[in-house]
Amino acid sequence: MHVMVLGAAGMIGRKLIAALAKKGEINGRPIDRITGVDIVAPEMPVSPLKCDAIAGDLSAEGMASRIVALRPDLIFHLAAIVSGEAEADFEKGYRINMDGTLALFEAIRREGEEKPYCPKLVFTSSIAVFGEPLPEEIEDTFFLTPLTSYGTQKAIGELLLADYSRRGFLDGIGIRLPTITIRPGKPNLAASGFFSSILREPLSGKEAVLPVGDDVRHWFASPRAAVGFLLHATGLETERLGARRTLSLPGLSATVGEQIEALRRVAGEKAVSLIRREPNAEIARIVQSWPKGFAAERAIALGFTAETSFDEIIRVHIDDELGGKLPE
Amino acid sequence: MHVMVLGAAGMIGRKLIAALAKKGEINGRPIDRITGVDIVAPEMPVSPLKCDAIAGDLSAEGMASRIVALRPDLIFHLAAIVSGEAEADFEKGYRINMDGTLALFEAIRREGEEKPYCPKLVFTSSIAVFGEPLPEEIEDTFFLTPLTSYGTQKAIGELLLADYSRRGFLDGIGIRLPTITIRPGKPNLAASGFFSSILREPLSGKEAVLPVGDDVRHWFASPRAAVGFLLHATGLETERLGARRTLSLPGLSATVGEQIEALRRVAGEKAVSLIRREPNAEIARIVQSWPKGFAAERAIALGFTAETSFDEIIRVHIDDELGGKLPE
Repeated sequence: MHVMVLGAAGMIGRKLIAALAKKGEINGRPIDRITGVDIVAPEMPVSPLKCDAIAGDLSAEGMASRIVALRPDLIFHLAAIVSGEAEADFEKGYRINMDGTLALFEAIRREGEEKPYCPKLVFTSSIAVFGEPLPEEIEDTFFLTPLTSYGTQKAIGELLLADYSRRGFLDGIGIRLPTITIRPGKPNLAASGFFSSILREPLSGKEAVLPVGDDVRHWFASPRAAVGFLLHATGLETERLGARRTLSLPGLSATVGEQIEALRRVAGEKAVSLIRREPNAEIARIVQSWPKGFAAERAIALGFTAETSFDEIIRVHIDDELGGKLPE
Repeated sequence: MHVMVLGAAGMIGRKLIAALAKKGEINGRPIDRITGVDIVAPEMPVSPLKCDAIAGDLSAEGMASRIVALRPDLIFHLAAIVSGEAEADFEKGYRINMDGTLALFEAIRREGEEKPYCPKLVFTSSIAVFGEPLPEEIEDTFFLTPLTSYGTQKAIGELLLADYSRRGFLDGIGIRLPTITIRPGKPNLAASGFFSSILREPLSGKEAVLPVGDDVRHWFASPRAAVGFLLHATGLETERLGARRTLSLPGLSATVGEQIEALRRVAGEKAVSLIRREPNAEIARIVQSWPKGFAAERAIALGFTAETSFDEIIRVHIDDELGGKLPE
């Protein structure tokens, strides 16, 4: 089968492609081709499979139909500009995140008009579709009130995914990823960045800044769990979803204090001492409006799994990013 | 002030314009101009106010900016193609109901880039944004799962309205109208048509067909209540809505059996005898998936009101459509 990954140069996209190339099959069907698409040509793994990189902007004239003409059997649509950028640049956010998604779905519909075509499509939505006031644990039937343009664009993507699926143009499943932690790489300016950096930096002997209090609660899963979600989604019989094509996924609801205690257990007091408290009211205000936890009953019943402690999430990072052990 | 009504040739649009012309003011501010816009030039009332009709398709190139350049202070966006047509013609539905709404909001945003402009905008959404399985009474925080393309397009309109409002490009409020009953005019082919025709036709001495059982429950308000909702929405301080810009409105939850009993009380046994039962499994199946009632707590707290019995709804029809009395 031919698998296409949109957003292939991003952190999750790269890990997903590596996993696909390593497995060489998906749900028992051999993969013969992987195509990675991103705004810059993504680096593709060295593999016996046919691996191609395509550079281009999904919202640009003709781009969506060009890639859909390759008739991939399975499409992962992870491509998006992130929350902060979509908020800073209104037009760009709508162009990439809404128009780009619509262009993809339309290209698939039109491709199917020529000759029957109905690919499985996994769409990554976000917990940013929810906005305060929120219950401590968000039920599967709780309504969407995005408080950012990014969240609005993702919520529109969910609606389009459901309608294009209902019409039989594609076979879609949407997944609302928890905040992926520990993100590898350097500290960034995202308001959520500290959730990763207060663990990642001390695990490598570096200092990290904590801008909020210990009692701040949020919703997490590891990058490895994210890849697991994406792969699991491809195997679901989507009839089981009915008209409700997007799922809130399982994750770990934890406080910053619980993150720090896990760091202490895994890496010791010295690591914890590298966290410098520097309260930032603006970041505290933003984070306060975010979801704190989900019931995720439907996704759990459908077999999605995530970590159940921050000790696990930290160990995943040590295994996958630090070669299995802490630096001396 | 200058009031613009999009969808001015529709049943609600015409009644709204008549009410505006008669009042001559809105929330204490005199109206000096009413502009009605529709795909065909709407008939405008004879009035001392400046009343203009504009014909055009909101989704056509340049149309939205042309009408927004008139800088109306208040816009009622009622323009849409109906559920059945949006389902039968996928492309047309998205073009009018989604692209048209987006074109309007974008034209407003761009108009404001030139010179500050932030009109109040009332958007009519629909209970078609909800889909089964549904509770008997839908709470304000229940999530949206449209089961039609029309419902999807309305839900997308709600999301865009909220984000464009949050950004300060317009000052929007969305209202989810109950099923408007008794619709004046001739019987039509809409699946919901019988809710009106089983009352309207017997009230005029004509036969009507009832395709479902007496126990079918649905959610209603009169055309007069609909105009009342639209006018009330213009007076709300939208800060009270927060980020949740669209409201499920109050209405009357009633069964077909309760409709018939009300008809009996108001118009007698002879009227009831004009209802011919002709079960239609397809219509019964469609209607079964529709909302049966709403809590509408937020809208009620904000002062929206609707009828509380079908006797009232029937009397509104007799007053507004039949000159105040039943035909002999």
